[in-house]
This record gives sequence, structure tokens and C-alpha cells, in this order.
Amino acid sequence: MKGLTTIDSLSRADLGALTRRGSSLRDRLDAGGQVERPLAGMCVANLFFEPSTRTRLSFDLAAQRLGAEVITFNPETASTKKGESLKDTVLTIAAIGADILVVRHEQNGVPQRVAEWSGLPVVNAGDGTHEHPTQMLVDAVTMWRHFGRLEGLRMAIVGDVSHSRVAGSLMRGMPALGVDLTLVGPAEWLPDETAGCSTSLSLDDVLVTVDVVYLLRVQTERGGKITPGYVDGYQLDGARSASLGTDAVILHPGPMNRGVEIAEEVAESPRCLVTEQVRNGVPVRMAVLGAIAEGAL
Amino acid sequence: MKGLTTIDSLSRADLGALTRRGSSLRDRLDAGGQVERPLAGMCVANLFFEPSTRTRLSFDLAAQRLGAEVITFNPETASTKKGESLKDTVLTIAAIGADILVVRHEQNGVPQRVAEWSGLPVVNAGDGTHEHPTQMLVDAVTMWRHFGRLEGLRMAIVGDVSHSRVAGSLMRGMPALGVDLTLVGPAEWLPDETAGCSTSLSLDDVLVTVDVVYLLRVQTERGGKITPGYVDGYQLDGARSASLGTDAVILHPGPMNRGVEIAEEVAESPRCLVTEQVRNGVPVRMAVLGAIAEGAL
Amino acid sequence: MKGLTTIDSLSRADLGALTRRGSSLRDRLDAGGQVERPLAGMCVANLFFEPSTRTRLSFDLAAQRLGAEVITFNPETASTKKGESLKDTVLTIAAIGADILVVRHEQNGVPQRVAEWSGLPVVNAGDGTHEHPTQMLVDAVTMWRHFGRLEGLRMAIVGDVSHSRVAGSLMRGMPALGVDLTLVGPAEWLPDETAGCSTSLSLDDVLVTVDVVYLLRVQTERGGKITPGYVDGYQLDGARSASLGTDAVILHPGPMNRGVEIAEEVAESPRCLVTEQVRNGVPVRMAVLGAIAEGAL
Repeated sequence: MKGLTTIDSLSRADLGALTRRGSSLRDRLDAGGQVERPLAGMCVANLFFEPSTRTRLSFDLAAQRLGAEVITFNPETASTKKGESLKDTVLTIAAIGADILVVRHEQNGVPQRVAEWSGLPVVNAGDGTHEHPTQMLVDAVTMWRHFGRLEGLRMAIVGDVSHSRVAGSLMRGMPALGVDLTLVGPAEWLPDETAGCSTSLSLDDVLVTVDVVYLLRVQTERGGKITPGYVDGYQLDGARSASLGTDAVILHPGPMNRGVEIAEEVAESPRCLVTEQVRNGVPVRMAVLGAIAEGAL
Repeated sequence: MKGLTTIDSLSRADLGALTRRGSSLRDRLDAGGQVERPLAGMCVANLFFEPSTRTRLSFDLAAQRLGAEVITFNPETASTKKGESLKDTVLTIAAIGADILVVRHEQNGVPQRVAEWSGLPVVNAGDGTHEHPTQMLVDAVTMWRHFGRLEGLRMAIVGDVSHSRVAGSLMRGMPALGVDLTLVGPAEWLPDETAGCSTSLSLDDVLVTVDVVYLLRVQTERGGKITPGYVDGYQLDGARSASLGTDAVILHPGPMNRGVEIAEEVAESPRCLVTEQVRNGVPVRMAVLGAIAEGAL
Repeated sequence: MKGLTTIDSLSRADLGALTRRGSSLRDRLDAGGQVERPLAGMCVANLFFEPSTRTRLSFDLAAQRLGAEVITFNPETASTKKGESLKDTVLTIAAIGADILVVRHEQNGVPQRVAEWSGLPVVNAGDGTHEHPTQMLVDAVTMWRHFGRLEGLRMAIVGDVSHSRVAGSLMRGMPALGVDLTLVGPAEWLPDETAGCSTSLSLDDVLVTVDVVYLLRVQTERGGKITPGYVDGYQLDGARSASLGTDAVILHPGPMNRGVEIAEEVAESPRCLVTEQVRNGVPVRMAVLGAIAEGAL
């Protein structure tokens, strides 16, 4: 295995090491000054076939901070307009001299195929409804920094779990780190395969028992529908937030739909660690890219 | 105050210091070789919500020359397509690790709001019809290098003054530096609030008296209409240019509409310092970013 | 002459020197580690008015690897939307501080005009149906590395020769290096001016005699039509590939239309050196940019 296309490729020890490394890099960035540049002379190619702000810019800055040269493939201004196949595009970018590929694509499995075609380490920056592994690591770092532990934490993932690639990675990684997961949502949004996680149709039942509420964005661009019933039953509003335990926190992979899965007042409350999650984005991606450069991934 | 969202935040001493610093950096760039890199380890994020060539590339190169990592938010390929609010986009980019934000937006006041939301120093790269402060500093450097002084120069700003953000910054900054300003244009394009500047409906009356003619672009994309009457009365053509004093010069923030506010032959004449203005773009933005990095802005 | 807008400006000695320098840089990149940075403190501006993947990213990475700052003009987000002329855009980017311009444009001759307007060294990254000189150097390096020589090689260029800028540069450069060229295609796609090259209407006649088959992409976006007759008569399929000499190789400037000018199985065969061509893209552009920085071009 090279790169990081799925959390399944990481052992529990890998997950722990990347979490600690990401958190340590966060401390070093917060302290200011420059970090080592283990990617000097290497080229990271960003291939984002889907729109992105936080993930693309996080990888861009992470690679630059490690000393890499960064090239960015933009489907809007690329030869794909000339009818080039995805495979040829990938082989071209590999042959140009990329050392690591960062890939986001609307179809499940594309990052894995890109890795097979190119022979290069690929970091999956989100593929269809499948996985978003660096987001899972970001969340692990955020929880670890907040609680000082992961083992034994109880976490609910709320919303359209079956179509969420973030949920796909969380369901693979969090139990391995000792986090107890419950999937919450309307029946049609819960996956058939729950990988041993508990499920619940009632957010209200679950809220009082968890340390972490992980809200998913309703992905209207993937066919998700925002119904009044959804908002009534699953929006984390002020009343529901008040039923959480004193120390419980709220995570969201962003971008948030305020007024849909989360109320404005809750999004702005100190319980909501969304900004912490984003702050951990660059150091976690530095940890992953650094581990790849060392051959550890 | 952090950053530079309005010329109003600068004292006369600040304006003089930034003008001298920009001019000095211009000399150093012209002499070749590399400059110090006070922004090494810092990240400058460019957020251009409106099209731009000269301003965006000037900030990009200025930041790189100072050693910064640069990340560029592109609304075309960003999560704003997922319905993310401007505020959430800004908070995300701040949390990713940007140290300085450069913001252009079609609405007045957005850079100031971005500064308030993010707590980061923001450089206004043009907001609506409000201000474009680094352009004013570019113009001050250009005039200072040409005349060896600013105090006592007489300058006419010609065209759609009321809708021009460049004029907005010039009207705030030039009088503070001792420049005597006259606003020239058809009555409907002169602002109600002239901040003590003289006004004139006749370009011909004013030309013989000024050291600097500052032509504004007719901004058709903001509703400005190019009428034959405008061209007749206000285009700086060869005849009008000939009525200027021997040492008088022409400035324009670009891009020029040749044949509208300026005749081709005048745009190409040695009096027209447009290229000098662009050459001063990078060193002036280096001066601003450098002052911010030092905490002086 | 400054820069590289046409192969005509290169002597045979220049062509040989750039070929050797590109090949040597390829070896150094393959060996890993960092190369010298003769462009430190210089700014390379990429001006791509047409879509591109391999060429744009190759120049971007080549410039970064040589230590340059890179700024990228994107027509999609630029002031050309405000009606700025090409000349003003170019003069602006030159004045911002670019030291070398890389230009792709749909119209023949634009890079040369850009060089005249700006006074800066310009590298032609493809202009209309005219030339694509760095592609010719890439191909020379690829053939030289494969055969150990160029003198005496026999090469067929197959397809829409008259509209191909790659063919335009090959026809200027390859004969000077001692390569014997035959132009192959339907009569309406062969140029009137063949510069002393042989021509043939029959691919089958030519295949048995050549060392290099150079396939051109049918450029439907330039009016090229893919007819069944073309595929029947000129597609390099498995049977035709089998009639090639044992050591003969296939080149293609990419992107390939698999199933049009080349069959899938042939594109995937070891004879097809397309990936080698792409691998030589960055070192060849480094050779060109490096020679310009030294004043040798």
C-alpha cells in the first residue's frame, strides 16, 4: 500500500501515530516559525475534479509548508476539453513529474484506480459516497486534543449517513480507535451495512448519551432532499443542544447549512468545534504527506 | 486597526512612509537580485470575488517575493457552489492558516467585515464603489518618483468619479499628502460628497492648470454608459493632451478603454505613465504586506 | 533574438545543445534530489489563452524547479472580461515584473507579437497552426535517448499535418538535426509547402521504412473531421504496428484519441513512447528556461 485511499489500509497503530503527528504539527504551527521541509524537491499534484475550498487549500498549503512544489490540475482549463480520458490525464500528470497525487472525484474508487494506473502514492481527498480519509484523521485529532483521549468516547453521526463519504471514513476509523459509534437519521438515510455500529432513528434519544455529535451536511447536490420533517426531527437546534452533556461537543465537516442540519445559534456556540476541525486540516495533511515522503504510508 | 481596508486608517505619516518604502522597494527590484523575505513561514490568501489581472497578480508576486506561501480562493471552483456563506468561507480560510487576507469584492465594505469576522489583517484589493487603497499608494509612488514631491501638485480626476473606488481612495489620500484635487466629469458622475475637493464640469478648463490628469475607466459593468457626448466632452485626445503643461502627466488605473476615455495616441505618448503605475504595483504591495508583517499596519 | 518563439531561430548547434541539456536534466531529475536554481528571484508568467494540461503544468513545474516565482494568467478570471486588449494585458503582466513569458494562443504569431510588445523573452507554448517549439525539442530528446542518435533516423508524421503546430516545429527542426521526414496523410491534410520533406498518401507504404511514426491528433476543435475513411486508411492499429521494423517506435504529442489515430492496443504497447515524451517535458522546458536566464536564448 502506498498513499492513503482508504482508512481500511491503516492499522490501529497507524491511526494513532497519524493522530499524534497531526496534533504535534498543529502545536508547532501555532507556535509560529517554520517547520522542516521533507518534501523539498518533490512535486505534489492536486487533482480536484469536484469543487472544494477547505480541502484543496489545506492540501495546497500543507504541501507548500513541507517544501514541495505544487501543481494544480483544473478540469475547467484542461485538455479534458479535448476529450482526453481520465486515465490519460492521470498518466500525463504522473509522467510530468508528480511524486504524490491528491485526488478528489465524484465517483467512488477513482483514487484507488489512479494509484493503480500511476504507481504513485495517492491521497484520497474525497471520492463519491465512499471515503474522505484525511477528514476522519482531522476529526480524530480534534477529538483527541479536546478530550485528551479517544478510547471510550461515544459519538453519534447524524444525517444522510448512507451517502456521506465522511461517514464512510469515520465508520472505518473511529471504532478502531475505541470510539463507540451510533448512526442516527431517518431510515432511508441509514446504511444497510453498519459495520457493527449502533443505529437510531431518534436524535433526541441519542443526544443525552454522547460525547460527540457529528452532523453531516445534507448534500442536495447528491440528491439529498431537505424536508421539513428532517429539520423537525434532526436539526440540532438550541433545545436539543441544551440536552447534551456538559462536556459534549459538536463536529461538522463543513460547509454547514445553517438552518438545516444545525441552527445558527448552535453553529456559533462554543460547543461547536468546526473552526478547530479546519485548523487541524493543514497539520493533519502535513502528517499524511510527510509519512508518505518517508515511505511510512 | 490591522491591515489596510481604507485610506482613512492611515495618518499622513503612514502615507508618507508607505510611499517611500514602496519607492525604495521599486529601486531594489529594478536593481535585480533578491530581497529579504520577512513573510517566510506566513500564508497570504488571495480572495478575489471579482475578476482581476493586475491587482491579483501583483499581490501574488509581492507575497511570493517576500517569502510567503500563497493560496488562492477561486469562487469558480469553490464550495460556495454548495451554498456556503461568505462568512463561513472567510472563517474557513482563516482557520486553514492564512496570516493575511487580500480581498476583492463587488460589495462595499466586505473587506472590513472580513477583517471583523476573521480577526486577521485584511488588505482591501477593491470593494464595490468604495475604495482601492493600494492603487492610491501606487499612484502616490508614481507621482512622487516622477515629480520628486507630492506637496503642492495639482491633480484632476476625470470621469465617473462617483462610482470609482479608485477615486474613493484618491480623495481620501491625496489631499492628506498635500495634493490639490479637482473632480471633473458630467454632473451625474460627480459625487455629492466631495470632501473639500474642487469640482468642474469642463475638462478643457481644468487641463491647463494641472500637473496630473487621472483618467478613470468608464465602468460599463457597473452601469456606466459610454455616450458620444462623454467622448466629445471628456476623452483625453491629442488636442486636449497638447493643452497640458509641459511637465504634466497622465495616470490611469487600467485597464484603459482606448478610444473612450483616452485616445490611442495619448495612451502611447510618453506623458502617459500607466506602465510606471503597473511597475510600482508589486513593490507597493510588498511595502503594505511587509508593514503588516511587522505589525506597523 | 530572445526567447523561443520559432524553431527557425535556433541553429543546428543550438538544437543539439538544447537536446543534450534537456536529456541531462532528465537524468538529474530521475536521480532525485534538487537541481540548481538559476531562476531564483525571477518571475515566469504563464499566459495560456487556450486549454492545456501537460504543457502548462510542465512549464509551471519547470519554472518552480529552477527557483522562479510563477504567476498564472487565467483568461477566465481576468480583466479581459472588462474589454482589455491582448496588448494591454501583455504590457501589464510585463510591467508587473515578469522576466519570462510563456504564451499559448489560438492565433498564429501571437507569441512573436508578445515578444515585440513586451521586449521580454517569450517561449511559444503553441500558437494556432504555426509552431510548438518546445514539443519539437521534447521529441528530439525522446528520440535521442531511445536511439542514441538523431542523424539518419527516418520519421513519418501522420495525420492533419497542415493544421498541426507540432508538425510545424518538427518540419523546421528535425531535418536540421539530420532526421529524414516524410509527411503522410490524405491529400487535403498535407501542406502546400513541404520544406523539402517527402510526402505520401499511403501510411502502409511508409511504415516499413521508418524508425519513428509520429501520430498527430485529429484536432476536431480546429475543424478536423474524423471520417471512417481516415480511420481505415491512417489509424495505426495492431496490424499496421506489426509491419513496423523491430526497433521502430511511435510518438504522439498527446492527448491521444484512442480508436481514432491510434488503436488502444498500440497506445498501450511498449513501442509507444508517449509517456517518455511527457517525462521529458519538464527537463526540456527547464533547459529552455535555463538557457534564457543565461542569455543563451
